[in-house]
Amino acid sequence: MRDPRVANLARILVRYSTRVGEGDTCLIEGSAAAQPLIAAVYEEVLEAGGHPVVAMSFEGQAASFFERANDAQLEWISPLAEWGAEQADCRIAIGADTNTRELSGVPPERQTKRQAATRRLMQRTMERSAEGTHRWVYTIFPTNAYASDAEMSLRQFEDFYFGACLADEADPLAAWERASAETRRLAERVQGASEIHITGPGTDIRLGVEGRTFIPCFGDRNMPDGEFFTGPVEDSVEGEVTFHLPAMVGGREVAGVRMRFEGGKVVDATAERGEQYLIELLDTDEGARRLGELGIGTNYRIDRGTRDVLLDEKIGGTVHMAVGASYPESGGRNESAVHTDLVCDLRRGGRIEADGELIQENGRFVV
Amino acid sequence: MRDPRVANLARILVRYSTRVGEGDTCLIEGSAAAQPLIAAVYEEVLEAGGHPVVAMSFEGQAASFFERANDAQLEWISPLAEWGAEQADCRIAIGADTNTRELSGVPPERQTKRQAATRRLMQRTMERSAEGTHRWVYTIFPTNAYASDAEMSLRQFEDFYFGACLADEADPLAAWERASAETRRLAERVQGASEIHITGPGTDIRLGVEGRTFIPCFGDRNMPDGEFFTGPVEDSVEGEVTFHLPAMVGGREVAGVRMRFEGGKVVDATAERGEQYLIELLDTDEGARRLGELGIGTNYRIDRGTRDVLLDEKIGGTVHMAVGASYPESGGRNESAVHTDLVCDLRRGGRIEADGELIQENGRFVV
Repeated sequence: MRDPRVANLARILVRYSTRVGEGDTCLIEGSAAAQPLIAAVYEEVLEAGGHPVVAMSFEGQAASFFERANDAQLEWISPLAEWGAEQADCRIAIGADTNTRELSGVPPERQTKRQAATRRLMQRTMERSAEGTHRWVYTIFPTNAYASDAEMSLRQFEDFYFGACLADEADPLAAWERASAETRRLAERVQGASEIHITGPGTDIRLGVEGRTFIPCFGDRNMPDGEFFTGPVEDSVEGEVTFHLPAMVGGREVAGVRMRFEGGKVVDATAERGEQYLIELLDTDEGARRLGELGIGTNYRIDRGTRDVLLDEKIGGTVHMAVGASYPESGGRNESAVHTDLVCDLRRGGRIEADGELIQENGRFVV
Repeated sequence: MRDPRVANLARILVRYSTRVGEGDTCLIEGSAAAQPLIAAVYEEVLEAGGHPVVAMSFEGQAASFFERANDAQLEWISPLAEWGAEQADCRIAIGADTNTRELSGVPPERQTKRQAATRRLMQRTMERSAEGTHRWVYTIFPTNAYASDAEMSLRQFEDFYFGACLADEADPLAAWERASAETRRLAERVQGASEIHITGPGTDIRLGVEGRTFIPCFGDRNMPDGEFFTGPVEDSVEGEVTFHLPAMVGGREVAGVRMRFEGGKVVDATAERGEQYLIELLDTDEGARRLGELGIGTNYRIDRGTRDVLLDEKIGGTVHMAVGASYPESGGRNESAVHTDLVCDLRRGGRIEADGELIQENGRFVV
């Protein structure tokens, strides 16, 4: 029998995140390890009157590709990926890694070459979703690999993950409507502030946000979701921040990161793990030492780090900052090939103030 | 570790059947149960310099589709199927049923509606392969469902199946070159005859083949392969034939079939199992009571029936006849919506004569 939470998650993805309607085409991408969710999404799309197209990869396909592909193959775009970006009304992408480190041995320049080839498709996806002609969402399906990174058993991770997605609620669509109203309320509450001041263990940092837009995220692009974010004024950031949660960055673990900012720029960075890689990342280009994003998590069903930023950046009681590119819709103007999120935990002794008004204390919103 | 026979089968499919070359696009279709072979084919295509596109369905996808699809969905063609038929240089389709009866409960009119919608694609595939701009092959991957139909354990079926594909040979490509030379030789040997006379248990039948072409099949469309076939003269067939091997026809088992022909037409047909369905089939249209194909199996590695016609019709020492549509390239002109192959076993007491000359006796070619 299918886990009813899988059917609920499928309902959320199809009926809430992408709102598949009569006659809509919907690309369903995922690896074979996600089969139960792919099947449930497929059925939900059919029941919504849509036309599902399944693009399932075999386990280990990406590693197999990078081990063998020559330059022409690295740059080739499949007609299905092309169709997904240019034509599909909806797209539901499901991560289901059975080995989150399988690309560790791939030379970075090969990954970069591939990314350069696919960038155009990502841009088209973004343009079309801004125009309202394309709706997409990214989620994962619980595997032992993700559970292991989160230091849980698979059963524990499933409970945790489906909870984070509100897929264990009796009426998950209504639960997301409530959650999205709350995230919108919080984003509106800080909108208009000039400065955000964040303090906490190893952290005392001020970010200018004058004229910038706080954008609430409530399950329309990511599932689980729950954050509001903006692009800080590029030369405004001053102070120190500690990123308490370990993260996987480009297939490598980075942990215990501290950064000091002056005039918006990272002037000192250290890490307990992955320091050399972090420094290289910051030296990628001019924009890589400035913040492109400040995000504030609002999902209190995510209560611990998992090393997967899709989940960690939404933890209620944390903030995340990304060095590198900003999202233009937030008003941010930083440009970079990099966009790396790191998470700062405010649940023990942290505070967020907006223009001097207390917004959050010890990880709990007080507004 | 991967079964080396899987890698060999992938080599056969990519290097022999479809001859994927530098820059060729290759659609790889199959269900998730075929993952090991899909992965091996993918790697072989990359190594050949081609561009593989994986179209993997989840287990039970077809049943899920037919249970839910409305009329518009039944008639919708996926852009991937469209691309496969219209654009792809090569296509490798891999059956891997985990339940060969899963569509038993689907109303036939729903299947017919779907077939009508996809017919255009099949025609394009045939046209393009006749033009030489498309190369395709169909194979299966061993599953418990196929093994069960063949009354074997999965291990036994794997040995049997990989043997039938010559994938257990040290040099499988050379083995197929030899097998194809032998099949071509036999087809040339009977080419030019006016009449084929087949006798055996419950069988004494004469088929006119004057002016018709015997076409050898050696792994370029089916794997395993090994047969040569023609389209008999439509009004020439006279006598009786017993089809000894049970078969799955439209998801139903048909066994112990006997037919009597007069003036090319089936005038009496009985079956130990599935008789009613058989009679309905013969009454589908005018052409359904005439033969569209006479095929002679040449694969002696296939030594027993499996209820899967892909395999059974190639058994060395059998002939098969199809009621319904003929293949135009053989010179046959019979038209019908039906093309159903049934297999007659000549290994015990059978004979094939061409214009009175003995060609095969007790299932062994004597020429």
